[in-house]
Amino acid sequence: MKAIIVEQQENANGLKLTDLPAPVPAPGELLVKVHAAAINRTDIVTREGKSGYATNPILGVEIAGVVEKVEGESQYSPGDRVMGLVNGGGYAEYAVMPADRAIKVPSTYTFEQAVAVPEVFLTAYQTLYWIGRLQPGESVLIHAGASGVGTAAIQLAKKLSNAQVIVTAGSQEKLDFCRDLGADVLINYKQQSFEEEVLQATGGQGVDLILDFVGADYWDKNLASIKKEGRWVLIGILGGIQVEQVNLFALMSKCVQLTGTLLTPRSDEYKARLTADFMRDVFPHMEKGEIQPIVDTVFPLAQAMEAQQHMEANRNIGKIILKVVE
Amino acid sequence: MKAIIVEQQENANGLKLTDLPAPVPAPGELLVKVHAAAINRTDIVTREGKSGYATNPILGVEIAGVVEKVEGESQYSPGDRVMGLVNGGGYAEYAVMPADRAIKVPSTYTFEQAVAVPEVFLTAYQTLYWIGRLQPGESVLIHAGASGVGTAAIQLAKKLSNAQVIVTAGSQEKLDFCRDLGADVLINYKQQSFEEEVLQATGGQGVDLILDFVGADYWDKNLASIKKEGRWVLIGILGGIQVEQVNLFALMSKCVQLTGTLLTPRSDEYKARLTADFMRDVFPHMEKGEIQPIVDTVFPLAQAMEAQQHMEANRNIGKIILKVVE
Repeated sequence: MKAIIVEQQENANGLKLTDLPAPVPAPGELLVKVHAAAINRTDIVTREGKSGYATNPILGVEIAGVVEKVEGESQYSPGDRVMGLVNGGGYAEYAVMPADRAIKVPSTYTFEQAVAVPEVFLTAYQTLYWIGRLQPGESVLIHAGASGVGTAAIQLAKKLSNAQVIVTAGSQEKLDFCRDLGADVLINYKQQSFEEEVLQATGGQGVDLILDFVGADYWDKNLASIKKEGRWVLIGILGGIQVEQVNLFALMSKCVQLTGTLLTPRSDEYKARLTADFMRDVFPHMEKGEIQPIVDTVFPLAQAMEAQQHMEANRNIGKIILKVVE
Repeated sequence: MKAIIVEQQENANGLKLTDLPAPVPAPGELLVKVHAAAINRTDIVTREGKSGYATNPILGVEIAGVVEKVEGESQYSPGDRVMGLVNGGGYAEYAVMPADRAIKVPSTYTFEQAVAVPEVFLTAYQTLYWIGRLQPGESVLIHAGASGVGTAAIQLAKKLSNAQVIVTAGSQEKLDFCRDLGADVLINYKQQSFEEEVLQATGGQGVDLILDFVGADYWDKNLASIKKEGRWVLIGILGGIQVEQVNLFALMSKCVQLTGTLLTPRSDEYKARLTADFMRDVFPHMEKGEIQPIVDTVFPLAQAMEAQQHMEANRNIGKIILKVVE
């Protein structure tokens, strides 16, 4: 089968289309004929040899396709359309996937749309609900609103919880996009002081929940933007990894809960439980067309390197996809 | 009635025994004839004029005594023995208390023992269970094990959850005391590297939960001591308020939940719910004598200043009490 591997580990900048044997599913796994794979930042980290946890020589953690073979018991059968996260091996014509991590593809979705769902929507769901415990009608501040997880979180927070959704982004185009997805309050962080806007939008109280992809640069402003007893979920460090001079008493006197999280390194069992809850809570909204995956660009498999460079240029709104079956 | 007020706000070092009218209970409050009041660090902060939230001129947030009058509906009647937290006014012969914050005094307890319960046991209970969600058989690291909240937390973690309890303290005397209360692993932080001892005691995994009274000085060591997906509750800053450098990615890759908390500034409604859960989960163990309040020294009301100085000297194990009724 055709597959994309890292060509030159040392220079860490080349990808190669090659021929490899198709993988063999272990018990509890599905063999999936891949129709589309998605690009993720973790793939770039792996390409650069920096991930530390990738063992599959074939890149890619996210696929959509058709079940070819089922090894052991599963709710799926050959011919079923599935999407989901894989432990590497996604940029290829065939991949194996733990059966309990497969999500049914909504009937109205193409494979290119389906593959735009798992990573960002599972992360947004995990962050908003499992960790952030968002309640109906609460307020949530979503930084990087036009990012993959941002666009997913805006939709989930509106459709599942009718939350007051406050977003930040760096351009009017991105903010318009967020508004079209349902965001209530739009803040251009380049032109406005976001903590002042947040306090104004929440009657001086601050938000119940912050989804923070930025980290260090926003530390003090996030602390000023959060409500007493609020929850703050740290899922990205686009604005730096290191915070200088953290005042612990501020966390105590505001009774803030700060949770760091990543999805990729979580256990198989965690991902399976998350997938099951996601199917129950989110799939019905997708099937009804109330929630839309956001696709930026579709590249053919052979152009995986161009697809990754497109991500590295940071100009996409939504997911970058590899089309495997033409 | 006799009561203790701050004599000299400017120098912030004098307390005065004076005569004031007894307080009048508002609807939903109890008037309590105070038999004993406890000294708390917040009282010293208030004496120094630094608390920012104290409005009652009479010091003291913790009392035990007999219900004198009930204003409105309550589960209590005149003559009942109650203990609990008050919004100031504790160092006095009479005090008012929100009825839904009163806790029945276990039948075998004296008032001096009873008044040693509310603040430290409610804080330990809130920290271990409401925030830390301690599960049966999990491991918990309790810093300052011989402190008021530490001694309460050791007992609760053993009796309610049969947890593996790991404590730190600065002397053999304090560690022996912790062992007698049920602590499993004793670490002298002056002689041992606590994070190495914690990892050894937990098979290299780290603890499920940290109760952190220390703050800045222990930041990196706590991060090294916590299990992946562990919970870390920050309830004190004995070791400094300011962390020089926080690595956010370490919080993310370990998926750590860090919660800052204080009990005193929480809302009345929060304290009432906490009290109700505490009565359900902890009171039966107190009534059976399985959990013991720890009393260090009892002073007469007129010696409130000496009692506070005894706390400031940091040599007590357990609570410092003012006896109001001889």
